[in-house]
Amino acid sequence: MMSGSDGYFDYNATTPLRLEARQAWLEACERWWQNPSSLYRAAGAAARVLEEERESLAEQLGVEPARIVFNSGATEGNNAIMAHVAASAGRVAFSAVEHPSLREAARRWLPHEATTELPVEATGLLDLTSLSTWLRQNSTASLVSLMAANNESGSLQPWREAADLCAEAGVSFHCDATQWIGKEPLQGLAQCSWITLSAHKFGGPKGVGALVLPAGEKRLRWLAGGPQEGGHRAGTENLPAICAMGAALRAAEAERPQAQTSQAAARDAFEAALLQAFPDLRLIGADSPRLWNTSLFVMPRHRNLKWLTRLSEVGYSVSTGSACSSGREGSSVVLHALGASDEELRRVMRVSGGWHTPAQAWLDLAAQFVETSAALDQGGGLRRIQLGG
Amino acid sequence: MMSGSDGYFDYNATTPLRLEARQAWLEACERWWQNPSSLYRAAGAAARVLEEERESLAEQLGVEPARIVFNSGATEGNNAIMAHVAASAGRVAFSAVEHPSLREAARRWLPHEATTELPVEATGLLDLTSLSTWLRQNSTASLVSLMAANNESGSLQPWREAADLCAEAGVSFHCDATQWIGKEPLQGLAQCSWITLSAHKFGGPKGVGALVLPAGEKRLRWLAGGPQEGGHRAGTENLPAICAMGAALRAAEAERPQAQTSQAAARDAFEAALLQAFPDLRLIGADSPRLWNTSLFVMPRHRNLKWLTRLSEVGYSVSTGSACSSGREGSSVVLHALGASDEELRRVMRVSGGWHTPAQAWLDLAAQFVETSAALDQGGGLRRIQLGG
Repeated sequence: MMSGSDGYFDYNATTPLRLEARQAWLEACERWWQNPSSLYRAAGAAARVLEEERESLAEQLGVEPARIVFNSGATEGNNAIMAHVAASAGRVAFSAVEHPSLREAARRWLPHEATTELPVEATGLLDLTSLSTWLRQNSTASLVSLMAANNESGSLQPWREAADLCAEAGVSFHCDATQWIGKEPLQGLAQCSWITLSAHKFGGPKGVGALVLPAGEKRLRWLAGGPQEGGHRAGTENLPAICAMGAALRAAEAERPQAQTSQAAARDAFEAALLQAFPDLRLIGADSPRLWNTSLFVMPRHRNLKWLTRLSEVGYSVSTGSACSSGREGSSVVLHALGASDEELRRVMRVSGGWHTPAQAWLDLAAQFVETSAALDQGGGLRRIQLGG
Repeated sequence: MMSGSDGYFDYNATTPLRLEARQAWLEACERWWQNPSSLYRAAGAAARVLEEERESLAEQLGVEPARIVFNSGATEGNNAIMAHVAASAGRVAFSAVEHPSLREAARRWLPHEATTELPVEATGLLDLTSLSTWLRQNSTASLVSLMAANNESGSLQPWREAADLCAEAGVSFHCDATQWIGKEPLQGLAQCSWITLSAHKFGGPKGVGALVLPAGEKRLRWLAGGPQEGGHRAGTENLPAICAMGAALRAAEAERPQAQTSQAAARDAFEAALLQAFPDLRLIGADSPRLWNTSLFVMPRHRNLKWLTRLSEVGYSVSTGSACSSGREGSSVVLHALGASDEELRRVMRVSGGWHTPAQAWLDLAAQFVETSAALDQGGGLRRIQLGG
């Protein structure tokens, strides 16, 4: 039985709160809890801390502070962008493997004929040729949206190239960088017109994130009702969470170079051990660049929920895909886009580690898959699930 | 010089975090930080805690748990309601003294001809006759919106009567209960079709609140992208903040009966002392029911910003009106609605205490107004403000 968070392999769903973030949240609740819009001294101090956090994030991303709108996270940001495009009767293209908060937001806010799903290649990466074609044929388009890293496969999309193509075509480019930020270098993000992100994916608190606007964007009005966040998002600023997000990102960035190397090696060793034990296991997205923390694969036998339940019983937290997919059992668009069959979908597992996951924990998890396999082959897993309802 | 929060008289802008809320937040970050949508044990525990918090709030409000949508606060909730009405091409009437997050949201999401501003009486309270007339003339209207308690004057609106009139007319009724909840009894709120609230107004954290839906409401889709919150608001649930909000509301409710009596007496003594020192001072909204913590008045001389700055220098935090009004210096619709002149607006001050504000702190504040008056009459305040820029 694992203890602490060493058995936690679902960092792409959410992360434990970093100590630095916890500390920053508590400090802000203690010292800067006043409303930053109020006019007395203590509120002025809160307003200054808010702008310092805006400058810190802006500097890390290489953008002007005025481009940053703090919000409740990437789902809100993605919806805000689509509502904004809808307000000007615009048209949007996005990859077939975007997060539901992007794809469903496009459908929520835009008429069907204003949205285009761009196909991905067999690798799961956006087909840049089809993007070029679409841009040529849609010279008055409003926006192209491409995630930086996929939440299920970890695949790194060619977002820099897509941003360049969009810039040439004079079309706005949105990058949902939710899974990228804190794990991969921030360089280059500034060239995206729009960026969305969530703090809880890199050790910050839940319920806070940021939307980066195009330089000079004045029209976006998501939440009306006050002058906060440049008038783009009204409501009392969630300063403690904003401070905690800043602390988390600074900590993640400091650890990133080291984690990127050591964790990728540990993840690769995990996959090698799995493949040795299960030669018919199918790794997904491993042939192209992907996040250092993510492993997505199709088990050769037994439904993923059985694996998950068994592993959970001995202290390991893994996933059957995205926690955000509607329908809780691996209804993955990513895997559909990659040509997986419905039957394969039911055997998909996602394992995603953190910045400090011990190399031994990765190996222990692989060993636990082998042990679980034995139990499941004997039918034990099935019985237990039936007993538990 | 005041220490701690005894000199804080701006509770209507925001409140310090209650100890119970801080504790609940830390506990949830420690024990239930997993994504409630994940399927392993620890995530299941988080999902259960989430539903317990939903049930707790539902029970306090007297509504079905399915009516509760946790969100980032009342500004988001008010915008979500207006976007929802807009989606069905509906029409809305709201009082002239609603919070900007309601009035501006109505203008943001609805065409001008779909909104009606209902007048208030000389007391600042909604004119129920004009509501009846409007309901008779707009039998296909979608929504009437009336706040429970005004953020500036503290006036308690006849929201129960308005809810009854709407129920008779078969029109939905929304109550922005942001300033009411935690300060006044929750009884009766269940009869409202829609309720919005923010945790940071009753000692909970910033960035969390709830939107209460009409029973059986299935169509509202504010944030798309996942099945969270019944599909009404996608995005990873902010469970630590939701737990903290619950803890804060339970604590506020426990203290309410006592605070309501003792704080009202302390506030009244403050006003009596002020009136004795400044016989030409004009109290606003004091002739009709109002929150026990709020005092709004027009000083007989000197601009409110001078008073605020001087009081801030000696450790008192007061307001020139709402922190949320656009334009930071007392551009109060409430006072305009009450017939105040532009010149009077510049002399308006709002003082709002908390559940534990010492009676002596209220009297000290009154005494400080007298001292400040002497300094301002000698022109000292003006000089200081000029020096400070």
